[in-house]
Amino acid sequence: MKIVFHGNNAATFHPGFAGLLSAPHDISILSDTLDRADEVAALTGADVVIGVKLTPDHPALTARLYQVPGAGYDGIDLSLLPPDCALCNCFGHETAIAEYVMAALLSRHVPLAKADAQLRQGDWHYWAGGPDGLRTELGAQSIGIVGYGHIGQAVAARAAAFGMAVHVANRSPVAGGHLAASYGLDALSDMLGRVDIVINTLPLTETTRGLIGIQALAAMQPHAILMNVGRGAVVDEDALYDALAGDRIGGAILDTWYVYPTPAAPHPLPGNKPFHLLPNVTMTPHMSGWTTGTIARRRAAMAENVNRLAAGDDLINQIQ
Amino acid sequence: MKIVFHGNNAATFHPGFAGLLSAPHDISILSDTLDRADEVAALTGADVVIGVKLTPDHPALTARLYQVPGAGYDGIDLSLLPPDCALCNCFGHETAIAEYVMAALLSRHVPLAKADAQLRQGDWHYWAGGPDGLRTELGAQSIGIVGYGHIGQAVAARAAAFGMAVHVANRSPVAGGHLAASYGLDALSDMLGRVDIVINTLPLTETTRGLIGIQALAAMQPHAILMNVGRGAVVDEDALYDALAGDRIGGAILDTWYVYPTPAAPHPLPGNKPFHLLPNVTMTPHMSGWTTGTIARRRAAMAENVNRLAAGDDLINQIQ
Repeated sequence: MKIVFHGNNAATFHPGFAGLLSAPHDISILSDTLDRADEVAALTGADVVIGVKLTPDHPALTARLYQVPGAGYDGIDLSLLPPDCALCNCFGHETAIAEYVMAALLSRHVPLAKADAQLRQGDWHYWAGGPDGLRTELGAQSIGIVGYGHIGQAVAARAAAFGMAVHVANRSPVAGGHLAASYGLDALSDMLGRVDIVINTLPLTETTRGLIGIQALAAMQPHAILMNVGRGAVVDEDALYDALAGDRIGGAILDTWYVYPTPAAPHPLPGNKPFHLLPNVTMTPHMSGWTTGTIARRRAAMAENVNRLAAGDDLINQIQ
Repeated sequence: MKIVFHGNNAATFHPGFAGLLSAPHDISILSDTLDRADEVAALTGADVVIGVKLTPDHPALTARLYQVPGAGYDGIDLSLLPPDCALCNCFGHETAIAEYVMAALLSRHVPLAKADAQLRQGDWHYWAGGPDGLRTELGAQSIGIVGYGHIGQAVAARAAAFGMAVHVANRSPVAGGHLAASYGLDALSDMLGRVDIVINTLPLTETTRGLIGIQALAAMQPHAILMNVGRGAVVDEDALYDALAGDRIGGAILDTWYVYPTPAAPHPLPGNKPFHLLPNVTMTPHMSGWTTGTIARRRAAMAENVNRLAAGDDLINQIQ
C-alpha cells in the first residue's frame, strides 16, 4: 500500500513506523503545504493518509483510511473523505495530559523555583517552623472533571491518589470507587458550584461548543480555578476572558486555545482577547499531551491499523 | 497543667490548640532564646513542653511530657530529660512531603513557567506536533524509596498512581501490591543501580548517618536523580557534592541540609560545600512538610497527648 504522512505533526510519528508493520509498504512524508511538485499526486494516490488537516484547499483523496495521529479530528472536513474511506483517530495521550494537569496543579502549592533562588542566597523564607512559608495542600482540594473519557479517567486516578475529592460531569452516567460524586452534563452547574478546580477534557463538537459559558462560569466559586486541556472553544472565549479580567473566578490554566499558528501567521497570541496580559492565567501552547510516550503509543496504534487494513480486519478507533 | 510552647516553631501550633483540649490548662508561649525574665521559670515549671530544641544551655526541666511538634527529635538532648518525662513526636507531614516530592519530580518533565513566558510572546515552541517541544513522562521512570515509614508510603502511593515502578529499601521487609521490588537496607546498592530516582526518607540516627555515601552514590546510574527529604546527614555531604560537581549522577533535589540557621547566623548557605553554585541541584530550605494540613494534623495529635496525660492514659507516638 501507499502510505503518506501529511505534514509536520504526522511526520513526527514516522521514525520507527515501518518497523512496526507486518509487511513492507511504500511510505513517504509530505509537507503541510504540499510544496514539491510530486506531493499533490502522492496525497491523491495514497491508500492511507496520516494527517491532521483536510480542507477544500487540498487535492481530492482516493484513500481507504484517513488516520489522525491524535484524538481531535476537528481539522478534518468530513465531507471531503471518499465514500468508502474510514476515519480513525488514536489516543495514548492521557498519561501525558494527566502529568501536565498534576504538575500545573501542584505548582500552585509548592513554590520550588522561588525557594531554590532564595536559598542560593541564604534566604530560608520557606523553612518549616516559620509562619510565612506555610503552604496549602492540593490533596485538600476538590476537582470537577468535565468529560470522563481517556483523559478524565487518567486525571481522576492521579487526583484520587493525592486524596482529592473527585467529581465528574459526563454525558452518560459514570461510577467508580474513587469518585466523590458524578453528574450528568445537564447538571454541570451543580458540580461547578461545589469544586475548587474545574477541568474541561471534552473535545469540540456541535454540542460541546461554548458548553462552559457565562452561566457555567458564574456558577463557579470565586476562588475556583478553570483548566482546559480539551478544546479551547468548549469554553466561551469572551465569557472566560471577562471572568478572569474581572477576578470573578480564581484563575485559569489554559492549554487549548482560540487562535493557532498558521503558515501565514506562525507566531500568534493564542486568544482574540488579551489573555497574555492577565496575571491570573497560566498559559501553555497546546502541549499537554506531547510526550515521547504519547508518540510511541500512537505510532503503535496507527501501525496496528495499517496492518489491520492490509489484512482486511476491523480497524481500531474508527469514527466513521 | 502548665503547658509551654517553646520557640517559634512550636508557637505555630498554638492557635486553636486550647480549643482541642478536654479541660482548661495554663498555656504560654516562650521565645526560642528565653529573652524575658519569667521565661526561664516558666520552662522549668512546665508539666508539658512543646519544642524542638533542648540543649545544656537550657534550664533544667521538671516536665512529665516533652512533645516534639514534628517527627525528627535530633534537636533534643535525651540526657537532659527528667527521668520520668515521656518524649513524644508526631507525624502528619507525609501528605505535604509527598506533594513536594511529586511537584519536584513533575517539574523536571513539564516546563510550565518557560512555556507560559514564551506563549505570552507568541512563541509556540512546545506546541504538540513539533519535535522540539517533546517531553518525557515521569510515569516511565522508576523510583527507589529508602525507608518505608509514613513518608515513604505516601510517596509510593502517589508514584504508583502515575505508573512509576516503585522500589523500596527498608530495614524490615515490606510488601505491597503496588511495589515493583523491595530490598533490605543491606542490599541498598542493588536497588540504587536499578532506579531512575532515589529518594531518602530516613531520619538521622547512628545507623543512618552517612548511609548514602561514596559507595551508594557510585552504585547509582549516571542519569539518576537523588532526592533527600529525610535528614541531610543521612547522605554524606562530601560524597554527594563530589558526585554532583563531577556529574557522576544526574542531579539532586535537596530539601534537608548540613547547615541550618541559628540565632547568631540566620542566613547561612545550607552546605559546607558550595551546593549553591551547582546547576544540577534543586535546593529548598527544609520546607517539604510545612503546610496548613501538617499543622492541623500535628496540633490535633499533640492536643490528644495532653488530654491523655491529663487522664492518665497511654500516650501516642511515645519514643521513650
